[in-house]
Amino acid sequence: MSDNDVTRIDGRTPDQLRPVTLERGWSKHAEGSVLVSFGDTRVLCTASLTEGVPRWRKGTGEGWVTSEYSMLPRSTNTRGDREAVRGRIGGRTHEISRLIGRSLRAVVDFKALGENTIVLDCDVLQADGGTRTAAITGAYVALADAVTWAQGRKLIRSKAQPLTGAVSAVSVGIIDGTPMLDLCYEEDVRAETDMNVVCTDDGRFVEVQGTAEGVPFARTELDALLDLAVKGCAQLDGGQRQALAAD
Amino acid sequence: MSDNDVTRIDGRTPDQLRPVTLERGWSKHAEGSVLVSFGDTRVLCTASLTEGVPRWRKGTGEGWVTSEYSMLPRSTNTRGDREAVRGRIGGRTHEISRLIGRSLRAVVDFKALGENTIVLDCDVLQADGGTRTAAITGAYVALADAVTWAQGRKLIRSKAQPLTGAVSAVSVGIIDGTPMLDLCYEEDVRAETDMNVVCTDDGRFVEVQGTAEGVPFARTELDALLDLAVKGCAQLDGGQRQALAAD
Amino acid sequence: MSDNDVTRIDGRTPDQLRPVTLERGWSKHAEGSVLVSFGDTRVLCTASLTEGVPRWRKGTGEGWVTSEYSMLPRSTNTRGDREAVRGRIGGRTHEISRLIGRSLRAVVDFKALGENTIVLDCDVLQADGGTRTAAITGAYVALADAVTWAQGRKLIRSKAQPLTGAVSAVSVGIIDGTPMLDLCYEEDVRAETDMNVVCTDDGRFVEVQGTAEGVPFARTELDALLDLAVKGCAQLDGGQRQALAAD
Amino acid sequence: MSDNDVTRIDGRTPDQLRPVTLERGWSKHAEGSVLVSFGDTRVLCTASLTEGVPRWRKGTGEGWVTSEYSMLPRSTNTRGDREAVRGRIGGRTHEISRLIGRSLRAVVDFKALGENTIVLDCDVLQADGGTRTAAITGAYVALADAVTWAQGRKLIRSKAQPLTGAVSAVSVGIIDGTPMLDLCYEEDVRAETDMNVVCTDDGRFVEVQGTAEGVPFARTELDALLDLAVKGCAQLDGGQRQALAAD
Amino acid sequence: MSDNDVTRIDGRTPDQLRPVTLERGWSKHAEGSVLVSFGDTRVLCTASLTEGVPRWRKGTGEGWVTSEYSMLPRSTNTRGDREAVRGRIGGRTHEISRLIGRSLRAVVDFKALGENTIVLDCDVLQADGGTRTAAITGAYVALADAVTWAQGRKLIRSKAQPLTGAVSAVSVGIIDGTPMLDLCYEEDVRAETDMNVVCTDDGRFVEVQGTAEGVPFARTELDALLDLAVKGCAQLDGGQRQALAAD
Amino acid sequence: MSDNDVTRIDGRTPDQLRPVTLERGWSKHAEGSVLVSFGDTRVLCTASLTEGVPRWRKGTGEGWVTSEYSMLPRSTNTRGDREAVRGRIGGRTHEISRLIGRSLRAVVDFKALGENTIVLDCDVLQADGGTRTAAITGAYVALADAVTWAQGRKLIRSKAQPLTGAVSAVSVGIIDGTPMLDLCYEEDVRAETDMNVVCTDDGRFVEVQGTAEGVPFARTELDALLDLAVKGCAQLDGGQRQALAAD
Repeated sequence: MSDNDVTRIDGRTPDQLRPVTLERGWSKHAEGSVLVSFGDTRVLCTASLTEGVPRWRKGTGEGWVTSEYSMLPRSTNTRGDREAVRGRIGGRTHEISRLIGRSLRAVVDFKALGENTIVLDCDVLQADGGTRTAAITGAYVALADAVTWAQGRKLIRSKAQPLTGAVSAVSVGIIDGTPMLDLCYEEDVRAETDMNVVCTDDGRFVEVQGTAEGVPFARTELDALLDLAVKGCAQLDGGQRQALAAD
Repeated sequence: MSDNDVTRIDGRTPDQLRPVTLERGWSKHAEGSVLVSFGDTRVLCTASLTEGVPRWRKGTGEGWVTSEYSMLPRSTNTRGDREAVRGRIGGRTHEISRLIGRSLRAVVDFKALGENTIVLDCDVLQADGGTRTAAITGAYVALADAVTWAQGRKLIRSKAQPLTGAVSAVSVGIIDGTPMLDLCYEEDVRAETDMNVVCTDDGRFVEVQGTAEGVPFARTELDALLDLAVKGCAQLDGGQRQALAAD
Repeated sequence: MSDNDVTRIDGRTPDQLRPVTLERGWSKHAEGSVLVSFGDTRVLCTASLTEGVPRWRKGTGEGWVTSEYSMLPRSTNTRGDREAVRGRIGGRTHEISRLIGRSLRAVVDFKALGENTIVLDCDVLQADGGTRTAAITGAYVALADAVTWAQGRKLIRSKAQPLTGAVSAVSVGIIDGTPMLDLCYEEDVRAETDMNVVCTDDGRFVEVQGTAEGVPFARTELDALLDLAVKGCAQLDGGQRQALAAD
Repeated sequence: MSDNDVTRIDGRTPDQLRPVTLERGWSKHAEGSVLVSFGDTRVLCTASLTEGVPRWRKGTGEGWVTSEYSMLPRSTNTRGDREAVRGRIGGRTHEISRLIGRSLRAVVDFKALGENTIVLDCDVLQADGGTRTAAITGAYVALADAVTWAQGRKLIRSKAQPLTGAVSAVSVGIIDGTPMLDLCYEEDVRAETDMNVVCTDDGRFVEVQGTAEGVPFARTELDALLDLAVKGCAQLDGGQRQALAAD
Repeated sequence: MSDNDVTRIDGRTPDQLRPVTLERGWSKHAEGSVLVSFGDTRVLCTASLTEGVPRWRKGTGEGWVTSEYSMLPRSTNTRGDREAVRGRIGGRTHEISRLIGRSLRAVVDFKALGENTIVLDCDVLQADGGTRTAAITGAYVALADAVTWAQGRKLIRSKAQPLTGAVSAVSVGIIDGTPMLDLCYEEDVRAETDMNVVCTDDGRFVEVQGTAEGVPFARTELDALLDLAVKGCAQLDGGQRQALAAD
Repeated sequence: MSDNDVTRIDGRTPDQLRPVTLERGWSKHAEGSVLVSFGDTRVLCTASLTEGVPRWRKGTGEGWVTSEYSMLPRSTNTRGDREAVRGRIGGRTHEISRLIGRSLRAVVDFKALGENTIVLDCDVLQADGGTRTAAITGAYVALADAVTWAQGRKLIRSKAQPLTGAVSAVSVGIIDGTPMLDLCYEEDVRAETDMNVVCTDDGRFVEVQGTAEGVPFARTELDALLDLAVKGCAQLDGGQRQALAAD
């Protein structure tokens, strides 16, 4: 396909991911922790497991998984206000925190997790596009480590695996008419259409969020983007497996 | 297709919208106002046009369109906290406000609008599923009325039309394996997959947001949902045209 | 009396109410709900009854009634900031919420109500003066419906009636020297003195709040305003009875 | 009248004020300052005059007067939360701040004041009922001192007096059927009806706020309370004159 | 030493305190209360004792002591914003509240206090430098009174004294090269180095906080300041003893 | 000295720093950035330089330097609440942000800096005691890099050096009677006295903050701690020089 003759800002082909690293055990305190990078995007993901669940879930025998996403003020090109100083969380932060939480919960068997709560903190140390997809991809690995840790301590005693699959995410977009995988910031700004796709390791969808930044997009474009995203997630899934096997 | 033999809670066929009404001129103060209903879901949409634009846009010659969504505390089955009383806006509210704003901006030519700002307030008076899609569908009509009003007063002087198309939205979901259009609350709760789709009047996409509530969904399911949504939006587009012609 | 020769902006005589409507059952979710209108002022009043009482009242055998008032941003001529977005409730909103709550509690026998809580949400959909008095008048009807609902479900089992009387409210003011009943917005702005009066159905006072907007007022003026208000409340009481009998 | 045979908790007759003191010049920084006491109720009132007015008033040639009321956490019998710590101002505080501001503005000629702003801070150091009425009574004296100060410095140059009259306030209430003047806390708690009345020095009304705490009150009771309040305000007016003459 | 030939703004010698007064029993409600003045700095300190402790301390048998510091808006030369109105506490307020709490806790035997909580509210009525040191010095006396009160009511039953010593505080600073004791506001502004020292009655240190306002300071300067502060605290300790003996 | 026979938890001698690293250029966006570690304590310090100054400083020709400190929720052993989510910054965070800002300003010549603002963000990625001292030590290096960057771009044109010296900080404390340098978390918890000392490269003091955690401390102890801190800062100063020379 001729699209792949297009060379991108950073020399990649349209269907190529940026270099991905998943550095486990980055924090000595957290039950699971990963410093994930998608190119220059770097997100520190920590999984904090505590016994017990929020009040509305008590006595159900089921656990809970949630997430909080945030960007350091100077993770971006120009310094942003610190949300703690402004005293309120912005809409974008809320939206992404919720997306990460939903994405991870899609592969959790809460009965098997038992009445434990896992909070995934995803703090963007450096941003260059795709922070939410890097966060989901990294947070899954931190989550897996926290589950293993809790099984080792018998905090999780169920025979069933609390994780029913793996989950990863990638952004795709159309730039100058060409569908591209894993947009860096400069590409993201120029994209006519921008889509974040969250897949499980069996190639099914957990979340599909497509937005026309400029002109509305046609069904054929949507289809091409979905194809690209599924392919990208499959590669990320491979990276997650490798990282988790490394120990 | 056998799916259409399925009868829904409220007697509809799977590909049938709820009764839709678009009552224009509901407010005597606003430059445009619509009380939209999708079945028992009722949203009051008002368009407030003011001359001038936010500071970051001054001097560009371009206008701005934004939106705020909110639910009355007892619009739902059990009373929710009033966000003004809690002192902070929840993530869901933020998310939907941003979605409505983005959806409408997709059909606005900001140069043609000139340095005017239009705020679309979408207040849910009664909720029964699909409040965000009803809000987008109604807000478009209120927006169109506000634009006409401003043209009448020469606040908008451009020869080009500020609205480049129409926009409407509908929810779709899979319930017991059957893709269904325009879910009511009870269906929404039971849906395995839930998708909100925003389309322009030429059948292209502005937003596609699909979420696996239970199990992840396959590409074929996604395709069926998109087909259904496009069909629903076409009908809503007809309703909008009719409402706007009525005057 | 020559005052009654004065013709008001909207053609009324000084002692005439605007057309009043009390539309019961406006919401399908709330235990009681009324869309009340005093002319162009429209307020949606919903009564939400829940079993149990706030912590400080537990174990007393007594119930509680409270209220929250709010204006939709574009209920007024120029759009106001949304209080949820500003993150704090303004003084006027606080003041009116407290007034409505106090007014209704004046006719509640909390022992007879039992340990139930009723919250009256009064949301102004369109404002044209007298929003607080319309809210009190409508909220009483919603409250009465919620009580009847709870008696039907045996949530209230006391033989004594939880409502010891009816309550309604009206504004009065002096414009160009003439005392007038039920001011619309334009009159309210021009009034030298503005008073809100809340009466029970036996003609006694629950609240009297008079404010000199321009010059201080004399005792004779105060007396004339009180006379007018008592007369207006008696008519509103008739409207409430009729509405409640209609079912 | 037999009511005056009734002896009150603190030995007063029903129509007797508590000992009132108005200590001027309490603060070395403020342009006007008064420590007012109504019995054990002690309020520090400071008037801060700054040149210039809020943005919405610029260029009108008119000044502005506003007020902020607050209670020290342990001014009451049991310690209350500090509003700054809670991060929001309660409804009661808002309500009283607004009442004080309105009451003082009723005797201000804003043209004569010129484009100056005076803020009256009323901080309750010790509370024993009637804090809002003591605050108004004391704040008037602080305001008068600030005006004199500004006239001395030629910040106010108008020949017209910025203060068109004096203003004072007192609470009245019905206890065990007897109308009483200037309620202390213990009386306030027991009062069936509670009214705050703000009068000018010519005996007219600026604010009348009556509330039925228990049972609604009749017109005759309202009349008796108003009589008592007018009488009390006349005495307070005398105290203010004496304090202001003392210098 | 020639330093003592220097005459200060207000005529004091470099090692001289301002006149100090400690007026006990200023509030009729609080368990302990002191109006402390260091020259024109006046702080109202109240001690509120309640049975029980914060949740994290329950069941330990130990009490808790904490503090809240605040300045009235017009306690300073130009009016400051009211923190309750701004909706957040500033860093300086936080810092001083914490300092006062820590300083007092240094002389509390929490076992002997038993499960009681004492809150010291320190409200600055008039500021002229040294508000935090005046607050600590006054709060200690209020604390001592609250402890005595609670022992009288058998709320504290331990034989051991809950207070293991006395605590007082003073500011010191270097102005034009001369170390000076107890800076007034004008001196504080001019000081090159500013230090707050909290001592116990046996001359040991609870807190030492030195800050170079202009140029960094040398060890010899630090030593001279500490000498001066210890001397000042010894005098303040004498004043506290005398005040507490007075009753 | 026999103290140095004491072996610490982590094998250090009492006067030994933990391994210190200063990794420059950690962020691709910031004008200066350092990942500093004091043992397991890791703080990311970024310096953001923007042209212009806060309003109160405009037109003075002088620049400004300020700082914001924060801890990632899971930088500690148990997860803390995210301050942005709570909607308010805690007292400790405020206090440390202010300390860092003051410490750096002590070595800045604002005239030489010109009307530029530098914000130092210090985000604790992992905490093990001494986060504020690591932050100051790292932030100085980031600040120096930002100044050099701005000089290269001619944003700073003064011939005078904007930095008049270097600044570093270290904690000291007394544990079981032995003064120790650079406490790790476990030592910090056990320390009777805890002191943070900020020094310039010529061995003078910018800040001295000593707190008695348990019993008050004597002058001799204070002196021993200051000696130790000065020694530690001298070593840190060497590390800073080496890091800055590396480029």
